[in-house]
Amino acid sequence: MRQTFDESTDPSFGAKHVPLIRQAMAEQGLDGFLIPHEDEHQNEYLPAANDRLAWATGFTGSAGAAVILRDRAAVFVDGRYTIQVRDQVDQSLFEIRDLVDGGVPAYLEQAAAPGQAIGYDPRLHSPDALYHLKTAAAKAGAELRPVTPNPLDKAWGEARPPQPTAPVVPHPLEYAGEDSSSKRHRIGESLAARGAEAAVITAPASIAWLFNIRGGDVIRSPLPLGQAVLNADGSARLFLDPQKVTPELPAWLGNEVRLETSEDLPQALTELRGKRVVVDPAQSASWYFEALSGAGAEVLRGDDPCALPRACKNPVEIEGTRRAHARDGAALSRFLHWLATEGQVNPPDEIEAVTKLEGFREETGAIKDLSFDTIAGALGNGAICHYRPTRKNNKRATMGSLLLVDSGGQYLDGTTDVTRTVAIGEPTQEMRERFTLVLKGHLALSRVMFPAGTTGSALDALARVPLWSHGLDYDHGTGHGVGSYLGVHEGPQRISKAPNTVALRPGMIVSNEPGYYKEGEYGIRIENLQVVTQPQEIKGGERPMMAFEALTLAPIDRRLVVKEMLTDEERHQFDAYHARVLGVVGPQVPADVRAWLEEVCAPL
Amino acid sequence: MRQTFDESTDPSFGAKHVPLIRQAMAEQGLDGFLIPHEDEHQNEYLPAANDRLAWATGFTGSAGAAVILRDRAAVFVDGRYTIQVRDQVDQSLFEIRDLVDGGVPAYLEQAAAPGQAIGYDPRLHSPDALYHLKTAAAKAGAELRPVTPNPLDKAWGEARPPQPTAPVVPHPLEYAGEDSSSKRHRIGESLAARGAEAAVITAPASIAWLFNIRGGDVIRSPLPLGQAVLNADGSARLFLDPQKVTPELPAWLGNEVRLETSEDLPQALTELRGKRVVVDPAQSASWYFEALSGAGAEVLRGDDPCALPRACKNPVEIEGTRRAHARDGAALSRFLHWLATEGQVNPPDEIEAVTKLEGFREETGAIKDLSFDTIAGALGNGAICHYRPTRKNNKRATMGSLLLVDSGGQYLDGTTDVTRTVAIGEPTQEMRERFTLVLKGHLALSRVMFPAGTTGSALDALARVPLWSHGLDYDHGTGHGVGSYLGVHEGPQRISKAPNTVALRPGMIVSNEPGYYKEGEYGIRIENLQVVTQPQEIKGGERPMMAFEALTLAPIDRRLVVKEMLTDEERHQFDAYHARVLGVVGPQVPADVRAWLEEVCAPL
Repeated sequence: MRQTFDESTDPSFGAKHVPLIRQAMAEQGLDGFLIPHEDEHQNEYLPAANDRLAWATGFTGSAGAAVILRDRAAVFVDGRYTIQVRDQVDQSLFEIRDLVDGGVPAYLEQAAAPGQAIGYDPRLHSPDALYHLKTAAAKAGAELRPVTPNPLDKAWGEARPPQPTAPVVPHPLEYAGEDSSSKRHRIGESLAARGAEAAVITAPASIAWLFNIRGGDVIRSPLPLGQAVLNADGSARLFLDPQKVTPELPAWLGNEVRLETSEDLPQALTELRGKRVVVDPAQSASWYFEALSGAGAEVLRGDDPCALPRACKNPVEIEGTRRAHARDGAALSRFLHWLATEGQVNPPDEIEAVTKLEGFREETGAIKDLSFDTIAGALGNGAICHYRPTRKNNKRATMGSLLLVDSGGQYLDGTTDVTRTVAIGEPTQEMRERFTLVLKGHLALSRVMFPAGTTGSALDALARVPLWSHGLDYDHGTGHGVGSYLGVHEGPQRISKAPNTVALRPGMIVSNEPGYYKEGEYGIRIENLQVVTQPQEIKGGERPMMAFEALTLAPIDRRLVVKEMLTDEERHQFDAYHARVLGVVGPQVPADVRAWLEEVCAPL
Repeated sequence: MRQTFDESTDPSFGAKHVPLIRQAMAEQGLDGFLIPHEDEHQNEYLPAANDRLAWATGFTGSAGAAVILRDRAAVFVDGRYTIQVRDQVDQSLFEIRDLVDGGVPAYLEQAAAPGQAIGYDPRLHSPDALYHLKTAAAKAGAELRPVTPNPLDKAWGEARPPQPTAPVVPHPLEYAGEDSSSKRHRIGESLAARGAEAAVITAPASIAWLFNIRGGDVIRSPLPLGQAVLNADGSARLFLDPQKVTPELPAWLGNEVRLETSEDLPQALTELRGKRVVVDPAQSASWYFEALSGAGAEVLRGDDPCALPRACKNPVEIEGTRRAHARDGAALSRFLHWLATEGQVNPPDEIEAVTKLEGFREETGAIKDLSFDTIAGALGNGAICHYRPTRKNNKRATMGSLLLVDSGGQYLDGTTDVTRTVAIGEPTQEMRERFTLVLKGHLALSRVMFPAGTTGSALDALARVPLWSHGLDYDHGTGHGVGSYLGVHEGPQRISKAPNTVALRPGMIVSNEPGYYKEGEYGIRIENLQVVTQPQEIKGGERPMMAFEALTLAPIDRRLVVKEMLTDEERHQFDAYHARVLGVVGPQVPADVRAWLEEVCAPL
């Protein structure tokens, strides 16, 4: 079993760890210390050794921060985590504040005192975030001071887990579709075209993509933690912990890539003196900017040059992801069959559902990991968007309830991410109507055709309009990018209300996941991954249009669909999708599942 | 007759005027000079005295630039004007270049020589534009030099028209809905909340709105050219040419507003020494930034503090705009009736159509000006988005063609802007199908409901999806803001593909004007103005939603609608709109027009 259901922290963490942190602060002459959620690699999911915020406070959300002063402390979370933080954090020690509204800077401005020295670890903060923090501290008359070592790490001491050392292995061409030399030369040329001579690359996904390697340093994604310097001539220096280097790696990397250890990195940055070097302030901490400027390099703030090319999957990656989704769709369909049969008689609890689904994925024999911890949300838990079932909050589905299951698998040929919402027993009319509104939005975003230059932000509303017209909405984005055996959340494209200037391009994979959440009662989400097609000529039209091809193949619960609320076009689209599901998944599943699939994939 | 049909320039302008400009450049020791389209007030429509680009080159588009060097010169236009510029500009003198792709900076980088001095008038360039120009000149080894006086103005000399001196008059409370004191104190408080002590306001529309005054310095919009300094305490200094000050103005402005002349402005900026002053780099030229910095003020780059409050119309303004649209809709309906009767027997040419329509508007007795020169585009002229009929390009509608008419009126109680496309004779099936696709987009953007925080950029695609799915699109925005007896193009909101972070708010007026253009054959556009409603509870819903109320009331040509392509919802919406048109416009028009209106407003 890959997924566990234990709490990894508890509210006593604060009382145990904050005094240790304060002691280490005092030894370094600090009146305060800043603890961001991000680690040295600006990871979304953290290795245990880098989950400093959780160790200090107990809070395990995927975004947040803490400030520890001599005599007060605060934890900062966004709207997704306002309930969770109160469960996890000792509020007698920590004030709970809003991460977005004012955030850490507003707190510093108010809580820091003149003359105080507030420490921060420069390897953890982006330069832009730091700018705001410094401005706020200055307003309070306090000083923000970069410190090494990190006092929290000192306080953590022996108890701190070791840094991960998962082996870094080649990612074969049959999955990658383009060799590293071709990628490096292509990206190198793009650097030269920007007038740059090199780029410092620190995003683990970019390192994995650029060198066609995979690792296992971060749970749920095959990322190798490390750094690289890519030169405009296509040569590169790759910095990895030597313990992670597998015997075949040097030959795989070839002559143009110098393999070094992370200890060599500072010296390598020094050697960029006098060069124009691209660094991405959204991916690389302020330490890189200061080290390069200090060395006399000319820093060009710019997008990670691998981000956009990585997002546009090549034909081999697209073919791979189709295979991965066909396989994963079969596992998921077996699970949905189980829910539609046994699950209707003896409704499972969330942990049973997660366990069963993981079992089916395991039986594919191809799964390398989950894409993320499966979210199975029964009843009111389904309405918590960033839910993860634990023994403590585990709920059993009841007759007349909804079970929301958001899950995915990491396969060598692709990363999947899919949400299905299933009725246990007879759903209420309200559930069916709201499910159908969500479905209408999902279908609209699935069938849209659009010209070059269209951003995800321009399409987001298509998925919301049916809900909006009924006075409903959901408070999350509609779609995120997805990697190819890489992170399940990937930029730079995004389908959301937040303005995003990145146009959707052929080969980009995005999720399409509108939802509806009734607090305390039930959650609904329908999520497929879909890939942007090449522009195609439209008969009688003038301009080629891109479209989406659905990658995810698994039935959508027809018992939740109010047929009369769908237009003819929507019904046709729904039926055509299910015909595809049956055609691809049917041959892969046992006879009883196939028979069921024929029923649930029949035209509405 | 307000509108004229003559060419205001001709291609000989370049040969006549460029030598004069070069002579003035030489006298000031310049090797080149930059000529932007914008004037001292960053106006869209220019007074003749400030249309320097037209005088120098012959080009009369609403955006563009020119560079005149010793021995070469270039004119820069965007995609809308590539045909027009070739008609208007002497290409033996001017190279034609793309304003967007590379633009003036790329040209300077290539065409300027080391050591050259390129002059610019600092009152005409925004600081951001200037930054790019300076960087480009520096790459070529040339220097960009601010110059006073403007050598083009010297060259123009006696022939230059005088600066406009239209009287500035009070805009009564019955139209404005909020007195100036209330506005000034409200905006002053918003400045204080931003930590500022004053703002320099140069946008003519903001000056008109803030002081409840109107002028006539710019054709087609009642703008008073001038400048103002607003203090955080609500007091202000207003700088106007004394010739424009009407006797009632000082009392109207009251004690808190000091009325001064434009000559007093430099001194007033000097007096802002030591203060934190908001200036909008999108509205105010670099001269203001330099003058304030030079005087020792702390310049805060920020949005014009009047822009957003001005965009959110108050109830009096909304009621006024409803009246203006009812009146204007009656005039337009009389015109459409004429087109539907006489126009079908003896198809008019564009000038006849414009003249007829202006006559009906004049007969309202309330029109103060057109909102802009009426665009009447017959046949292929309808496909030119920024068309204006002149005697030279005037076309007569033929049987089986489309006539696109985009027009509007300035009334004391509101500004209108409306486009209708009318079939002359029997339209082709293709015309009808494409008209219906445009209509479907228009209806989608008209009926959408949306929550707080939604931007125009998020809604733009709704108007395009029907066209996209047929391989069609249009190359302009879908909607612009509209003023209240002010500019017909107003920010900060906008409905377009271009990312815009300004959320739509109650009281904002926007146009809804999707189109389709078949080059050389015909153009289609359907445009209504619509106002954002207050958030309203939706039965059975959870979140209040805003919506649009259509302001424009005039029939849409049903002979161009393919009924079978509309959904039931769209048919219902179309019919409901026409019932409203009949109800409001019917009682205002003569019996024969009313009888016709009843026919064309009947359910489909």
